Amino acid sequence: MAGEGSEFRGRRIPEATVVRLPVYQRILSELAAADQRTVSSEQLAVLARVGAAKVRKDLSHLGSFGTRGTGYDTALLVAQIDRALGADGDWPIVIVGIGNLGRALANSEGFSSHGFRVTALFDADPAVVGTTVGGIAVRHIEELPAVVAAARPAVGVVATPAGVAQEVTDALVANAVPSILNFAPRVLTVPSNVVLRNVDLSIELQVMSFYQARSGTNSAEGPA
Amino acid sequence: MAGEGSEFRGRRIPEATVVRLPVYQRILSELAAADQRTVSSEQLAVLARVGAAKVRKDLSHLGSFGTRGTGYDTALLVAQIDRALGADGDWPIVIVGIGNLGRALANSEGFSSHGFRVTALFDADPAVVGTTVGGIAVRHIEELPAVVAAARPAVGVVATPAGVAQEVTDALVANAVPSILNFAPRVLTVPSNVVLRNVDLSIELQVMSFYQARSGTNSAEGPA
Repeated sequence: MAGEGSEFRGRRIPEATVVRLPVYQRILSELAAADQRTVSSEQLAVLARVGAAKVRKDLSHLGSFGTRGTGYDTALLVAQIDRALGADGDWPIVIVGIGNLGRALANSEGFSSHGFRVTALFDADPAVVGTTVGGIAVRHIEELPAVVAAARPAVGVVATPAGVAQEVTDALVANAVPSILNFAPRVLTVPSNVVLRNVDLSIELQVMSFYQARSGTNSAEGPA
Repeated sequence: MAGEGSEFRGRRIPEATVVRLPVYQRILSELAAADQRTVSSEQLAVLARVGAAKVRKDLSHLGSFGTRGTGYDTALLVAQIDRALGADGDWPIVIVGIGNLGRALANSEGFSSHGFRVTALFDADPAVVGTTVGGIAVRHIEELPAVVAAARPAVGVVATPAGVAQEVTDALVANAVPSILNFAPRVLTVPSNVVLRNVDLSIELQVMSFYQARSGTNSAEGPA
């Protein structure tokens, strides 16, 4: 048996931990699918490529403390992480911008699981409007106010070209979408009561080049 | 004048800072394009949605200390971040899997700037092989060993369906690609000398639902 049965309830979880929880969740889901019923912090650490002590600390924020010698109950831990991430809720999503990226998002597993569901797609291109992506018909951007008023999405995803990203965001905000997830390579501004998060597809590439560039140097710890 | 002229050289920069540097870089690039020659840590903080003290701390790792009352020299700071991130290097990239996501990546600004350049694209679908994406002809996956041996890419990007992601990764590793950037929703294993970073397109969505789920609760700090 793993965990001490305490549920996640209004605990303060550091953002660095929040960002790692989906990573653990994916690993645990794969282990559960492979019928592995318990997992050690060490195994989880190797697969997630973080330290085992960090794994234990992260999971302790959920009230989950593995049993020495046995580890964590895989299925229980998946459920605890789902609960912590709000994945037992219902999170309707609209996606604006149905180019290659918007299509990839509309079809991605991550946007149709853990409580998320794509409810509407919008584009301005007449060649795209009316086509079906991931089982959903693409609507014209001019229909956004009416559709959003009816669907009341939790998240508006901006996957447009950079040049129109702010305009699209303004339309989402004006129609009371509370959270914006921005994939466009543009710095957006939103009112302070709107949640805005940005995804930079190249950010991990840049982090990677940072480490490679450093491994190519052999300079000592540098004073100014 | 901003900064004290010391260059980034083998300093230890915390990973949390490394991940924020591309964010600052994008903001600074937009400010520079708009002819704003100096920027305060407060303005940068608002646009990046982090605290001003954190901005100053992050930039101090680059040896950049803004001038009181004036702030940072925008263009100089862009150059310092580029240098820190290795963006003055040359980072050839190959992308495997030219579906919607692979196309989006091949066409994205982030994969063709700051020292990165896409040099080859691979797919297994006969309908895709031979087509041109972002000015580059898509090659058959069977050509990967020969092409990689000649191009010696710094990074192999995996944008395939989950089911073949490990197989494709093995092929990249077998052909001496030193770093793998994985977009497939699958936990990959690589030898310890290979750098592996994973991008989960839904991770920010999950972080967002975490905060929304929490704001919907009003429970106090929870004891176990």
